[in-house]
Amino acid sequence: MTAVGIDAIEIWTGNLKLDLPGTFAPEKGEDPEKYTKGLGLNASSFPDSYEDIVTMGANAAHRLMERKGLEPDDIGRIDVATESAFDNSKPVSTYIAGCLEEVYDDDFHHANKGERKFACIAGTQSLDDAYNWIRAGRNRGRSALVIATDTALYARGDAGEATQGAGAVAMLISEEPALVELSTEQGYGSADETDFLKPNQQFPSVDGKRSVQVYLARMREALEDYESVAGDVHPDDISYIPFHTPFPGMVRKAGLLGYRHITRDTSIEDDLADEIGRQPRKEAFDDEDAFRDAVREYMNALKETDRYHEWYAETIEPTLSLSREVGNWYTGSVHLARTSALKTALEEDRDLAGEILLVGSYGSGAQAEIHAETVADGWREEIGSLNVDQQLAARYDLSWADYEKVHDAHNHDVDDDVGEFTTPENEFVFDGWGRMGERKYSYVE
Amino acid sequence: MTAVGIDAIEIWTGNLKLDLPGTFAPEKGEDPEKYTKGLGLNASSFPDSYEDIVTMGANAAHRLMERKGLEPDDIGRIDVATESAFDNSKPVSTYIAGCLEEVYDDDFHHANKGERKFACIAGTQSLDDAYNWIRAGRNRGRSALVIATDTALYARGDAGEATQGAGAVAMLISEEPALVELSTEQGYGSADETDFLKPNQQFPSVDGKRSVQVYLARMREALEDYESVAGDVHPDDISYIPFHTPFPGMVRKAGLLGYRHITRDTSIEDDLADEIGRQPRKEAFDDEDAFRDAVREYMNALKETDRYHEWYAETIEPTLSLSREVGNWYTGSVHLARTSALKTALEEDRDLAGEILLVGSYGSGAQAEIHAETVADGWREEIGSLNVDQQLAARYDLSWADYEKVHDAHNHDVDDDVGEFTTPENEFVFDGWGRMGERKYSYVE
Repeated sequence: MTAVGIDAIEIWTGNLKLDLPGTFAPEKGEDPEKYTKGLGLNASSFPDSYEDIVTMGANAAHRLMERKGLEPDDIGRIDVATESAFDNSKPVSTYIAGCLEEVYDDDFHHANKGERKFACIAGTQSLDDAYNWIRAGRNRGRSALVIATDTALYARGDAGEATQGAGAVAMLISEEPALVELSTEQGYGSADETDFLKPNQQFPSVDGKRSVQVYLARMREALEDYESVAGDVHPDDISYIPFHTPFPGMVRKAGLLGYRHITRDTSIEDDLADEIGRQPRKEAFDDEDAFRDAVREYMNALKETDRYHEWYAETIEPTLSLSREVGNWYTGSVHLARTSALKTALEEDRDLAGEILLVGSYGSGAQAEIHAETVADGWREEIGSLNVDQQLAARYDLSWADYEKVHDAHNHDVDDDVGEFTTPENEFVFDGWGRMGERKYSYVE
Repeated sequence: MTAVGIDAIEIWTGNLKLDLPGTFAPEKGEDPEKYTKGLGLNASSFPDSYEDIVTMGANAAHRLMERKGLEPDDIGRIDVATESAFDNSKPVSTYIAGCLEEVYDDDFHHANKGERKFACIAGTQSLDDAYNWIRAGRNRGRSALVIATDTALYARGDAGEATQGAGAVAMLISEEPALVELSTEQGYGSADETDFLKPNQQFPSVDGKRSVQVYLARMREALEDYESVAGDVHPDDISYIPFHTPFPGMVRKAGLLGYRHITRDTSIEDDLADEIGRQPRKEAFDDEDAFRDAVREYMNALKETDRYHEWYAETIEPTLSLSREVGNWYTGSVHLARTSALKTALEEDRDLAGEILLVGSYGSGAQAEIHAETVADGWREEIGSLNVDQQLAARYDLSWADYEKVHDAHNHDVDDDVGEFTTPENEFVFDGWGRMGERKYSYVE
């Protein structure tokens, strides 16, 4: 069977930055470590006033197409995943295709364009759709462009305000991919949950505590479902586990839960038994509460072991480096996590081809999906072509007063004419509204 | 290759009806024939105050599952297509699964749930995704549930007000389907257009004239693209052509355009030549305008021929019967058109198994898709099980004053407590808001 997966990836950050320990914490009167250690975040990306989900997505896609030497005729499908849409009918993918048609001679009239919404998991769902489209033999030799783009803003003063972020990830899905091959096997954990939602509103209503519980519960279901089709996962077989990363602190919890699960009935559990005992088994307990207490106690002990620390440092920590500097990109987040891991491997000059990533995607509302990815031979060149470090370094560093203006500029309920903080160059920009209330775009050299 | 397609279909109309010639026309001071002949519509369906896109979708899905004897474990994927979503993050499919879990012992935690948005074409896109998912070998023997559900309201006084409608179509996508098999071949015509959109608003901004042009232009592209992979379409090979039907009058234009295209270079063109001449060929004209005028003239003559009338009466007219009684259901519309055609064939006792439908889907913004469907052996039993006629007959007939209240009840910007016009029975109903602003539902026996 021909391999199908991600042939190329590009990242486009919002052009502004909010320094959490340096600017946000002092204003809130909080210890900077609440953000850097607690949440695990140093900064958030924000869009300048001329940026939005369309410009960021189009810029990521344009850079990808240029780097890979692609023309519109090479693309048979453009799917956008977002939970920041500004239109209830017309999909973001049509606007992005419209932008790209400004800079290419040919058009995308032949391409199926779509939009998916399911909180932060829709990017992975679009990736899966593209995979299925190729496997179904409907792609006519063309590739799919999947773009996860979001402006993740919370209401001012909301508990989630420190986890904001904005950016886009564009991915090219092809046969014989250069970056990673996707597994056919998938695991799902999905339930009707009220943890995070946006009922007819731009900014989310969030139940923070419930949201953490739901994330972990769905992720556990997805892992069990994945193992039911792909066989048991063993820590030694997995190089990295990129998780959806609303903030790195959340992934600490998910990592521990995952490690307990995948070490059960392995020699790792045996090795750790002298130090912290064996994992509690449900059948050994008369009541549920006692079992849960025992599990909690085991987890607390497990996370203090050297073995766990080593595993976490090797397998999870490398997935968090980009997230720490940009905040939550919603649909793009898990794809940033994959990129962070591969980028670390490149920086450490690891030979990663043929190794396995386990990818844990999640969307509130709520659903987790787990699949595996096999690193392909071209990964080194692909990851080496990213310019994300330069992009991050070039962001304008917002003062608190700037930040307040930028938040207003992107608030649909505030009609505020905020100037630009940066000067766009070689990128698509928002440049006003049309006669039917549509947003209009142009390319700035 | 195993056949994949639609195994079962169910329709759920909103429980209320607005009589266009009897109630709407007199109030507007218009000739009733403006609606019945011009638009081709007799009535619109509306949701009662306890109905919405979730209840209609869940009720259609529930009836389908009951009729087919399905349990949650038989369903591996639930995709909802809508342009009437009331949440910017949490997908409608989770709410619908939550409803269904109230009446089944088991849950849908194993099922991938999603939501697609692209005006009226997202229902077909979800159908295609489900097909691809099965073809990709990821369905583990399970079927997909695709639900197209919309409340198509326009602002009061808008030109589109007479074309409103509300209802849901649920489809089960499976291997070895009982109803129709889908073709692998698809044709697309897709462009970034500003014909109909909802920029941060519930009701659409519409450029009616542009919208008609764009529909026809995209449909022609899609047909040409389809023929480039599936070979030329000949009228004799196609039993019905269900089109997206914003109103039957639109389909009259599409039917004529399609007929001209598929009769070119056939014996039908030869047969008609004595009466109306041959079709104008672009290469015979020096300038574009002269060519267009000649085409227009040919089309005007073509639509008066007996041959065209017969073809239209056999191939297109039967697709419009449901639409005439319910208005525009947006994402569900083309799936109603398919159902209308098959229902007519059943009523005429035709032997349809093995015959071909050409399905022309469309969404503003804008994209058309064309694919073929082969009628399967079980079609007669499936279509015979529908109770849509009883549903339509049971609708409450709104007075003008009632209609004004119902429109307000579903207007997100009006906080109006409107009572029920009908009494729900054996169906899911909306029953209030939860603490995070979420809509809540229950099943009423």
